[in-house]
Amino acid sequence: MDSTEALLSHFEGNKTINAVNCAVLPGLIDAHIHTTCAILRGVAQDVTNWLMDATIPYALQMTPAVNIAGTRLSVLEGLKAGTTTFGDSETPYPLWGEFFDEIGVRAILSPAFNAFPLEWSAWKEGDLYPFDMKAGRRGMEEAVDFACAWNGAAEGRITTMLGLQAADMLPLEILHAAKEIAQREGLMLHIHVAQGDRETKQIVKRYGKRPIAFLAEIGYLDEQLLAVHLTDATDEEVIQVAKSGAGMALCSGAIGIIDGLVPPAHVFRQAGGSVALGSDQACGNNCCNIFNEMKLTALFNKIKYHDPTIMPAWEVLRMATIEGAQAIGLDHKIGSLQVGKEADLILIDLSSPNLSPTLLNPIRNLVPNLVYAASGHEVKSVMVAGKLLVEDYQVLTVDESAILAEAQVQAQQLCQRVTADPIHKKMVLMEAMAKGKL
Amino acid sequence: MDSTEALLSHFEGNKTINAVNCAVLPGLIDAHIHTTCAILRGVAQDVTNWLMDATIPYALQMTPAVNIAGTRLSVLEGLKAGTTTFGDSETPYPLWGEFFDEIGVRAILSPAFNAFPLEWSAWKEGDLYPFDMKAGRRGMEEAVDFACAWNGAAEGRITTMLGLQAADMLPLEILHAAKEIAQREGLMLHIHVAQGDRETKQIVKRYGKRPIAFLAEIGYLDEQLLAVHLTDATDEEVIQVAKSGAGMALCSGAIGIIDGLVPPAHVFRQAGGSVALGSDQACGNNCCNIFNEMKLTALFNKIKYHDPTIMPAWEVLRMATIEGAQAIGLDHKIGSLQVGKEADLILIDLSSPNLSPTLLNPIRNLVPNLVYAASGHEVKSVMVAGKLLVEDYQVLTVDESAILAEAQVQAQQLCQRVTADPIHKKMVLMEAMAKGKL
Repeated sequence: MDSTEALLSHFEGNKTINAVNCAVLPGLIDAHIHTTCAILRGVAQDVTNWLMDATIPYALQMTPAVNIAGTRLSVLEGLKAGTTTFGDSETPYPLWGEFFDEIGVRAILSPAFNAFPLEWSAWKEGDLYPFDMKAGRRGMEEAVDFACAWNGAAEGRITTMLGLQAADMLPLEILHAAKEIAQREGLMLHIHVAQGDRETKQIVKRYGKRPIAFLAEIGYLDEQLLAVHLTDATDEEVIQVAKSGAGMALCSGAIGIIDGLVPPAHVFRQAGGSVALGSDQACGNNCCNIFNEMKLTALFNKIKYHDPTIMPAWEVLRMATIEGAQAIGLDHKIGSLQVGKEADLILIDLSSPNLSPTLLNPIRNLVPNLVYAASGHEVKSVMVAGKLLVEDYQVLTVDESAILAEAQVQAQQLCQRVTADPIHKKMVLMEAMAKGKL
Repeated sequence: MDSTEALLSHFEGNKTINAVNCAVLPGLIDAHIHTTCAILRGVAQDVTNWLMDATIPYALQMTPAVNIAGTRLSVLEGLKAGTTTFGDSETPYPLWGEFFDEIGVRAILSPAFNAFPLEWSAWKEGDLYPFDMKAGRRGMEEAVDFACAWNGAAEGRITTMLGLQAADMLPLEILHAAKEIAQREGLMLHIHVAQGDRETKQIVKRYGKRPIAFLAEIGYLDEQLLAVHLTDATDEEVIQVAKSGAGMALCSGAIGIIDGLVPPAHVFRQAGGSVALGSDQACGNNCCNIFNEMKLTALFNKIKYHDPTIMPAWEVLRMATIEGAQAIGLDHKIGSLQVGKEADLILIDLSSPNLSPTLLNPIRNLVPNLVYAASGHEVKSVMVAGKLLVEDYQVLTVDESAILAEAQVQAQQLCQRVTADPIHKKMVLMEAMAKGKL
């Protein structure tokens, strides 16, 4: 009480926000997300070959209108659950950057590219991927153009990285060129690294070494790298990446659902590396929510090591805030509430039944409850760069119901196109569908 | 549209509930919970010896007023998240049953007892537990009295089981007597079974065999048993329990946080057993929410087996509904929406951003989204035994803010008593507290 009075007598504000019974935290950071995929939420779970057997028929039918409807839905969902920074990796499409400007969140847009040809029919499992140098160069140019145009946009709220899809999906020449451009432009590289045995097999077959050794050789292991997943890296390789100064993006929910695996974030942190959390994509993970990622990360790692003390609540809360900011190179601006940093903050209503009671002594239950009990729906208000985007659970900058309605329309039309394409009959979930299990 | 019109022309209702954009599901079943513990939410996570090093100082300070405040908070939280049936295991205390009657949920109250003496100072780790026969008999009598008095109360909404705390915590004589009484009264036995290596060591030392073999020998393995946890049972033992007709209560969140382990529910189900989900207690698990348990159960098992097809969404949804009802012997009344069963149902708002869009073809995303994307805050309305308890997110039968306020008051007083007791200084989390990590 005194403290509020003292503040009011010393400072003048344009607006006073009632934060009684609220925790005030730095906005949460989602370092790796493919926002367009929200349109495909829930169509590809509980399957073995997630990409080929479940998502490809949908991916073939994506359009710019679907893309933007998906991005809007993902960001709306994340924002309402306290995410203020979105590390979005997408092939550039119309209105992508504009929407982040409009809704007011912080974004690190990573225009993605690979060197895959349109035509794959000659390729067989086990072969090296075919590369289309023209497509790869064009993809890189478009990505570089986008990254340079949007870096620092929206008064600095939007920055960019180069989104190389993965080292096995690009020829060496383009990998070299991309690194050179990134150094020249001061851009980080946002790359899926050691994401699975397919990637490992391709790199070993093409270059005679495993992905991390290959990336070290071509000069990719440094502070400019945001390495996503690392699922297929050995502990020694993980330590090598961490010690290089690269950051790691950890997508616990997505990798748990898609692969049944727990990425090596604990080893990465132990080696001194900074780990950021990512929700990846809704067709795998099913939700864009960093509270979900904090909880799953803590619990999955306890289970991986059969040890309840591994990844305590405060560690994963740091990953969602200050360590996440370090991993993406933005800790000078965000990740903690500090004089001189941007005002990205969230108010969490501690009087929600699932967060009650609030205990301060002898043990404070605040951080454990934020990680193990919260689900994100307790986020009452959200501010980014000093501007209120959500107030008392209402999104102020965009029309929520219009976004939901458009997502529903675009999704239904997409599903009609998928249904019209005979390829959909090969989807592995058609059997569960026929049995009424979905 | 036609369908609604047809219904309205054929039936008359006292009230019409708008369920546009809602999924209507059977109410969820929480088969194993200790409701009083909600007062201790968040005080005992990320520790190795959860019971002795983190919760005991709090447990020593529980009072009837704390107990009822905790029960009210747990049930409020669960109800708002779609739980309609609570399998609550507690040492009977004043107003326990009355509150379930008042709030209107379905309950299976399991009055719990053990034969532990008040005085333990002579006991050393490795010794057999001391038994106080008088305390054990008195506990059993009180439990039986409670169970008989409340079985079938509130027009059948409240039924009872006998809550034997665990086979290692009661002498053989009382185990025999309890089984005889249960058979006579037609009550199930709600027991922690093979919950950890301590229990196994005690039973092996006392009887020369492991817990499951011991329970088989004394005639406990049958349809009258609800076996909670089974964490320390081998696959062969799990199969033996499942084939006996006993049900299993699976507490994924609690065991994940407390032990870093995944109980053997997959093996139990494969052997033909019925598995129910349970939220256990908030000082371990941190929340009373069956959406949380569905999601964690599916994901933990994928990780345990390194296989994304294990425990698909539909399986865990069955555990939360019809299989859960089978495990607790109530499938003739609840667990599915069927003519002749009780009207326990929940409405889930599918237009929540995290559940959008709704897709029907070629792949329906409803069940995957309920399991992997929902968190329970999308539950709009709840009905139990045909009576609305929650309507448009408002609890109708109790005063939510009064329950939250009383929980806060009781919790603060409890914490003052804990702080006044020097034993609290031994709590393992005091170090994290001193470092500002909580």
